[in-house]
Amino acid sequence: MNQRELKNLLAAVQEGSLDIEGALERLRDLPFEDIGVAMIDHHRELRHGAPEIILGERKSGPQLEAIITTMAGRGGNILVTRLDAEKAAALCGLFPAAQYDSEARTLTLIQEEIIPRGRGPVAVVAAGTSDIPVAREATITLRMLGHQVDEVIDVGVAGIHRLFARAQILHRAAVVIVVAGMEGALPSVVGGMIKTPLIAVPTSVGYGTSFGGVAALLGMLNSCASGITVVNIDNGFGAAYAAHRINIQGSE
Amino acid sequence: MNQRELKNLLAAVQEGSLDIEGALERLRDLPFEDIGVAMIDHHRELRHGAPEIILGERKSGPQLEAIITTMAGRGGNILVTRLDAEKAAALCGLFPAAQYDSEARTLTLIQEEIIPRGRGPVAVVAAGTSDIPVAREATITLRMLGHQVDEVIDVGVAGIHRLFARAQILHRAAVVIVVAGMEGALPSVVGGMIKTPLIAVPTSVGYGTSFGGVAALLGMLNSCASGITVVNIDNGFGAAYAAHRINIQGSE
Amino acid sequence: MNQRELKNLLAAVQEGSLDIEGALERLRDLPFEDIGVAMIDHHRELRHGAPEIILGERKSGPQLEAIITTMAGRGGNILVTRLDAEKAAALCGLFPAAQYDSEARTLTLIQEEIIPRGRGPVAVVAAGTSDIPVAREATITLRMLGHQVDEVIDVGVAGIHRLFARAQILHRAAVVIVVAGMEGALPSVVGGMIKTPLIAVPTSVGYGTSFGGVAALLGMLNSCASGITVVNIDNGFGAAYAAHRINIQGSE
Amino acid sequence: MNQRELKNLLAAVQEGSLDIEGALERLRDLPFEDIGVAMIDHHRELRHGAPEIILGERKSGPQLEAIITTMAGRGGNILVTRLDAEKAAALCGLFPAAQYDSEARTLTLIQEEIIPRGRGPVAVVAAGTSDIPVAREATITLRMLGHQVDEVIDVGVAGIHRLFARAQILHRAAVVIVVAGMEGALPSVVGGMIKTPLIAVPTSVGYGTSFGGVAALLGMLNSCASGITVVNIDNGFGAAYAAHRINIQGSE
Amino acid sequence: MNQRELKNLLAAVQEGSLDIEGALERLRDLPFEDIGVAMIDHHRELRHGAPEIILGERKSGPQLEAIITTMAGRGGNILVTRLDAEKAAALCGLFPAAQYDSEARTLTLIQEEIIPRGRGPVAVVAAGTSDIPVAREATITLRMLGHQVDEVIDVGVAGIHRLFARAQILHRAAVVIVVAGMEGALPSVVGGMIKTPLIAVPTSVGYGTSFGGVAALLGMLNSCASGITVVNIDNGFGAAYAAHRINIQGSE
Amino acid sequence: MNQRELKNLLAAVQEGSLDIEGALERLRDLPFEDIGVAMIDHHRELRHGAPEIILGERKSGPQLEAIITTMAGRGGNILVTRLDAEKAAALCGLFPAAQYDSEARTLTLIQEEIIPRGRGPVAVVAAGTSDIPVAREATITLRMLGHQVDEVIDVGVAGIHRLFARAQILHRAAVVIVVAGMEGALPSVVGGMIKTPLIAVPTSVGYGTSFGGVAALLGMLNSCASGITVVNIDNGFGAAYAAHRINIQGSE
Amino acid sequence: MNQRELKNLLAAVQEGSLDIEGALERLRDLPFEDIGVAMIDHHRELRHGAPEIILGERKSGPQLEAIITTMAGRGGNILVTRLDAEKAAALCGLFPAAQYDSEARTLTLIQEEIIPRGRGPVAVVAAGTSDIPVAREATITLRMLGHQVDEVIDVGVAGIHRLFARAQILHRAAVVIVVAGMEGALPSVVGGMIKTPLIAVPTSVGYGTSFGGVAALLGMLNSCASGITVVNIDNGFGAAYAAHRINIQGSE
Amino acid sequence: MNQRELKNLLAAVQEGSLDIEGALERLRDLPFEDIGVAMIDHHRELRHGAPEIILGERKSGPQLEAIITTMAGRGGNILVTRLDAEKAAALCGLFPAAQYDSEARTLTLIQEEIIPRGRGPVAVVAAGTSDIPVAREATITLRMLGHQVDEVIDVGVAGIHRLFARAQILHRAAVVIVVAGMEGALPSVVGGMIKTPLIAVPTSVGYGTSFGGVAALLGMLNSCASGITVVNIDNGFGAAYAAHRINIQGSE
Repeated sequence: MNQRELKNLLAAVQEGSLDIEGALERLRDLPFEDIGVAMIDHHRELRHGAPEIILGERKSGPQLEAIITTMAGRGGNILVTRLDAEKAAALCGLFPAAQYDSEARTLTLIQEEIIPRGRGPVAVVAAGTSDIPVAREATITLRMLGHQVDEVIDVGVAGIHRLFARAQILHRAAVVIVVAGMEGALPSVVGGMIKTPLIAVPTSVGYGTSFGGVAALLGMLNSCASGITVVNIDNGFGAAYAAHRINIQGSE
Repeated sequence: MNQRELKNLLAAVQEGSLDIEGALERLRDLPFEDIGVAMIDHHRELRHGAPEIILGERKSGPQLEAIITTMAGRGGNILVTRLDAEKAAALCGLFPAAQYDSEARTLTLIQEEIIPRGRGPVAVVAAGTSDIPVAREATITLRMLGHQVDEVIDVGVAGIHRLFARAQILHRAAVVIVVAGMEGALPSVVGGMIKTPLIAVPTSVGYGTSFGGVAALLGMLNSCASGITVVNIDNGFGAAYAAHRINIQGSE
Repeated sequence: MNQRELKNLLAAVQEGSLDIEGALERLRDLPFEDIGVAMIDHHRELRHGAPEIILGERKSGPQLEAIITTMAGRGGNILVTRLDAEKAAALCGLFPAAQYDSEARTLTLIQEEIIPRGRGPVAVVAAGTSDIPVAREATITLRMLGHQVDEVIDVGVAGIHRLFARAQILHRAAVVIVVAGMEGALPSVVGGMIKTPLIAVPTSVGYGTSFGGVAALLGMLNSCASGITVVNIDNGFGAAYAAHRINIQGSE
Repeated sequence: MNQRELKNLLAAVQEGSLDIEGALERLRDLPFEDIGVAMIDHHRELRHGAPEIILGERKSGPQLEAIITTMAGRGGNILVTRLDAEKAAALCGLFPAAQYDSEARTLTLIQEEIIPRGRGPVAVVAAGTSDIPVAREATITLRMLGHQVDEVIDVGVAGIHRLFARAQILHRAAVVIVVAGMEGALPSVVGGMIKTPLIAVPTSVGYGTSFGGVAALLGMLNSCASGITVVNIDNGFGAAYAAHRINIQGSE
Repeated sequence: MNQRELKNLLAAVQEGSLDIEGALERLRDLPFEDIGVAMIDHHRELRHGAPEIILGERKSGPQLEAIITTMAGRGGNILVTRLDAEKAAALCGLFPAAQYDSEARTLTLIQEEIIPRGRGPVAVVAAGTSDIPVAREATITLRMLGHQVDEVIDVGVAGIHRLFARAQILHRAAVVIVVAGMEGALPSVVGGMIKTPLIAVPTSVGYGTSFGGVAALLGMLNSCASGITVVNIDNGFGAAYAAHRINIQGSE
Repeated sequence: MNQRELKNLLAAVQEGSLDIEGALERLRDLPFEDIGVAMIDHHRELRHGAPEIILGERKSGPQLEAIITTMAGRGGNILVTRLDAEKAAALCGLFPAAQYDSEARTLTLIQEEIIPRGRGPVAVVAAGTSDIPVAREATITLRMLGHQVDEVIDVGVAGIHRLFARAQILHRAAVVIVVAGMEGALPSVVGGMIKTPLIAVPTSVGYGTSFGGVAALLGMLNSCASGITVVNIDNGFGAAYAAHRINIQGSE
Repeated sequence: MNQRELKNLLAAVQEGSLDIEGALERLRDLPFEDIGVAMIDHHRELRHGAPEIILGERKSGPQLEAIITTMAGRGGNILVTRLDAEKAAALCGLFPAAQYDSEARTLTLIQEEIIPRGRGPVAVVAAGTSDIPVAREATITLRMLGHQVDEVIDVGVAGIHRLFARAQILHRAAVVIVVAGMEGALPSVVGGMIKTPLIAVPTSVGYGTSFGGVAALLGMLNSCASGITVVNIDNGFGAAYAAHRINIQGSE
Repeated sequence: MNQRELKNLLAAVQEGSLDIEGALERLRDLPFEDIGVAMIDHHRELRHGAPEIILGERKSGPQLEAIITTMAGRGGNILVTRLDAEKAAALCGLFPAAQYDSEARTLTLIQEEIIPRGRGPVAVVAAGTSDIPVAREATITLRMLGHQVDEVIDVGVAGIHRLFARAQILHRAAVVIVVAGMEGALPSVVGGMIKTPLIAVPTSVGYGTSFGGVAALLGMLNSCASGITVVNIDNGFGAAYAAHRINIQGSE
């Protein structure tokens, strides 16, 4: 039940064509869905000009095709994350305007101009070259959401001077995302340098006792730098979305 | 070497009382410390009117007394976190103006007016009454840092209607901190309701397979709501500081 | 907003004293709380004659006193779980009618007759004598909820004949709760003997690699007997409540 | 020793052809097997009209062929779970009446009418589309056992209104199975809404710190909703069988 | 149903006072208990001259007093394991003939001569002095069961020559128990030296990553010496009982 | 340095052809190797008539070919464990007398009669059909070592009567090996039935929280039956070798 | 900003062409990079004659080709670690002088003579043949860095005499690296024999509870031999580099 | 049997007062201990002027008193580690010359001058003030072993400039020990700055997901700086002993 339907119901009460009991009956069953729709409306408003986002993982090719076809028909932009190359190739055949980034494993279909948003650029910092896929997922997500992104790559703590050389980029960012595998120490160092919101992303880069990113995750959760927050291992998308939540505050 | 000293050095070069080699000699050894001091200066500026923050845990009574005496002498405000009742009692004897919150286990000493800051209120939401100590630590930290806080208590997901009744508080907040133990599901529900930055704090509330908060932590890291970030178990201070980083953006 | 208020609102629209926009405005804010209240009503109906249940753990003596005083004033029965002996002694001083079970660590205050319910008796089976406290918590919870309980104690799998001797009790039960620590194998054996709903409760009884009950929990989750369900370690209350959910089905 | 043999033994005593000591001697060795057979008889009676259930995993194609051929010869219904597509294709070639569900990875061979049973419908609720395979395994198992199933799909807690819209289905169910991966929070919310028996199934959906479903499992074991029970990760069959145990109570 | 009752039943059949169907009816329900009793008889025979063994942990003082009083009344020997000093002191007051070993935390009450048994001596080897309590529990258990024990103490692998000096003791043993904490490497070295059955006991000796004995346990389970078996952490009693099972084979 | 050499050295001292310092010099370097060789001799004696045993895993085809060729040249029997089918096929081509067991993944090459040994048969008990590969590895190892084996298959605890029907086999065994995955409860039940040495083998059979056999391992380590010992997950060979150590005691 | 630039800046101040504020402005931004460059210089000096080292894992073929081409152009030596055979074959096609070691999974390209360094030989000891790949990675890394290596293979603790026979090699080494999987006990034994620096490398050799090398790692971290240090699982390169750090001390 | 005894034996052979068989007899039993003594002799030589080292943990007061009395009687120096304050007080009463360091929990008894050794100073670096106890244990151990120590305290990575200010101390050290809790990132940064051997010590400083030092341990094992080695959590003694092994190389 949307606002128009609600208005009609009230008008019917006003006109006398619906008595109070009948109206009550309908309103008592006011489906949560409608409240939900209201919530979705807020979301829709929020997402204006923003992409539909689809988690590609664990969806079959036909499922993805069906979903994207429906969504693309609405004319908006589409972002598919965690999409493997094989399914991407098939989808690119069907949607020639779509672009697949094999590092980030994202497919993007841009059908309308992305409206810039956010109070400032988001810096996406990757400790090593192996962390780039996760960083790229964050970058692409942010750009699809309208944010400006500055990428800083290969500034691991074992060569800390490389990081310091990029300090300006960090200082001018509105939000900083730090992506690191292995010991996950980079966010601690960056967090001590800046007062900006910082989102740390552990990656599964490493072997043996990296335990698929757990070492990096624990490093970040136990950071001695105050006020660092963390997302799931390899969750570049989640970090980007968290940065989006922060960066749109006060700007729209 | 602070700015004044650097200025004097340059003035001496300008005046000719110091030759270039001599200046170079002094600048070559420009201690990292000084660069550090510059960094600290940024921090100091940032922290103007903000409390000195001391981690009380693992510090002895005499150590705490010494540190607080020194800091209190500068006239600013002081926040001690994770302070047990016994040490607190001793410190309150020494510093009669200090206040100890036995739930949050924080000691605060306010010697100058706290300057309000932040773009909006921070909502601190606690799933259950047992999560209050962690939530209180966040609240007190935020207030000492100048932020307005709205507390929402006992809105666990097993009685989800209680949460919905407080939706307005969540929607008007600039940042939301959600504190939950046990299964840690509350951030997922809240994250689906709002577009605000959301920081989730797992607590060690629970027993058996809660594993001291690990269950809640994993629940939060794997949240199906996009863009939720997480801090260490029971880290109310860290969540508050992360909220501080976010809330001061664009407001100062 | 309850039904009466909603009716008044619709009447005002009908009468013309409230225009459609004003009604819409109020309905848009239709508090979730009301929906929640409806849900609580269902719950209240469900809980008729049942005890108020309070988790004693992590609540202070004064908090418990305040809560129990309020609840006791309503005249119903009260069950406090996970209550240590010291707090219990204080509460028993304040509420002379209260009974504390030091094994189960429960305090019960019976102010009105417990209405019997459930399709049949619930069997509470404990593998060893050390598992009795958890089994007792289940038993007391069930009895406070109106169920009849048959206890079967010390029938561990290393002396399997002891279990078989009690087979009749198991077969006549409407629900069976099996409480076991160490290797947690008893539910598998019982589950193979009966077709009744079976809830397994791992306990923290054991040492070394029992890991505080994790060994028993894993044993139960991996049971080769079909259709066994499991609750948290030492969660006698939870098992009892699950049995309650099952046993009241079809009986009220 | 079966009943006939036992009868012969007693007849020999009656006739005097066997003295008491000789009979005692033989009865002392009364093989457990016979008791076992009796137990199987109870089971057989119980299972009348129910499918033979075969765990397909870790069985070779020839093994499965041999088992199904034997079982099918008895004319009853057959359910094979956790069967991969390759083996299924071979079996469907051999048993043309068999049906393979590639999502649920189940093969069903229906040779006699399934007798409806159970006090009411079982609701199978899946948090996300990726949880469907596990939910489907539960659904198919339940239907083969004679239960009516209502499926509710894609009602994750991050969009909680979707769940509320289906509240009626939940309220009318005799048993509710809730299937969820990632943070596994859905059972807590559902458990707070209904008084029905609720079986939670964690799934391995997720990545990083989902640890193959451990995050969801822990979420469910630590649920703040009272009386929720849990089965092994991805164990749709087990949840269905537990629901079967509950639903047949009081109905047969 | 004991043998006498069974005899009466058969006599009734013989006499004709009970017909075959009636006898069958009663025998069909032949309680497992009786079979169990037979099993216990075997056990009793087996245990002739052996101590009653009581796990002291998690039993209250009064419970222990009651159990020991009953058992002591039968005149046999008694072994209580995992008994803390406080409870032991009380029990020694009540049973003046009892002996408490504060290292092994065992209480022994010898009322009849222990009958020697076993094919040969059991060697109990402890890697370090901190492992002595667990080794002593094994030694005392073995002696109470009638086995001869040779103790070899402080022969850790970091000073491997100390072990070699005791090789004769190892070679002449019928069974070897090796007790070790920290890295748990000693069983591998001993296992490579002898062809005797070897039972490895990990202890909780260590700190940090010893994880309460898990490191030692894993070391033993992964031993490169063939045919080493392992018991639970700190389970000196269990190792002794396993050695007892081995040593009595072929000797009685 | 063997005894003859040592004798010569002493003779040289006695004769005066070697002075004390020179003898000291040589004795100080008394190589450990010689002590080692003595140890190897014991082993060689022990292994008379026994197979050479090769761990096939992580060895390349050419490596295995080289090792087996060398060993086969000595005329003894050979057992290769954990050998995959592909490498086995190649080896069977080279050694036509070799036999590959695809379930147990063992290759055996029998070139001389296996000498029977051991005080009695070894019972190898497998809980389910999926545990057969591990059980078979134990059986084949034992037979190659000269032991008689009785296999008992598919006697899981959820249908405990099946086990009781085989009780005679268990009672007559000199050693019992119990192989079980999932919850690993079978050894507890068997251990309560017999006084024989019992070696439990956890298997990786299961899914989800079986964690590759950890659940079964923990179940066995925490068994409430006294004196059960455990080997590594899926280590059928190790269990067999431990049984061999036990069974040869007192028989040779 | 290098020294020349700094000199120019000071000269400009001296000349009056730059005022103090302008100089301050530039000095405030004194890039960390320059400090970093100085650090890199140290490194460059250190690395004189040493190979460029590239982690092959997670780099694509084209990425590796580009990196090696650039580096090879400088004329130095190159070491690629953790390189799979397929990528190696392609690179060997492009760089005919390159050598691939399929065991160690290293590719080496030697374009200039390796300058010998280090105070003495490094002993690389491997417990079993399956540990050879990790040991070889260490050996090749050390040789590329200019160190002499003595390899000792297959000296596991279950046949400890084999180790003692090689004691001389261990005693003459300047540093000892001990590589072991399974229970990881070898470093404890070696550490008790020598006073040399010892670096332990756990390997992922094993199965079941070896947990991919965790058992060996824990064994090494908990070693009862004093002063043993440990690197990550399978980290032959890291151990070699640590040995390099030690061996060059005092020698250059 | 020491060298003198061996010499006497050989002299007896030379003199004819002992025949060859008698000498053989005694030599055949040449206890490994004696070989051990030879090894110990090396050690003793090595340890000349070095303290006897006693692990205080898990030793009773009387045990410690007995051990120290014996050792002190030899006139050398004594170091007791992991000694709690209560036992220390008792020992200081008995040995007035002993000194107890309550932070490091070490007791030292210096009876002879400590001979300086080592190629250079050892730097002991602690990330935070809470890491001081572990660092102090390392420092005191090193000083008792004759090494010069430079301590660097409170240089955590969140304020990285503090570390850089101490770079000179790090660069001049022969070995660097880095002690850190929480995320354990400091060794990575230090390791990137210096080419010196670096031993990382994780501490149990932290809470929640620090898991008693596991987070720091994993951070160090996965360090992106090459050639860092690690010891057990809180193992300051072990790190010191490893540094001792390194620092004496080439210096004695």
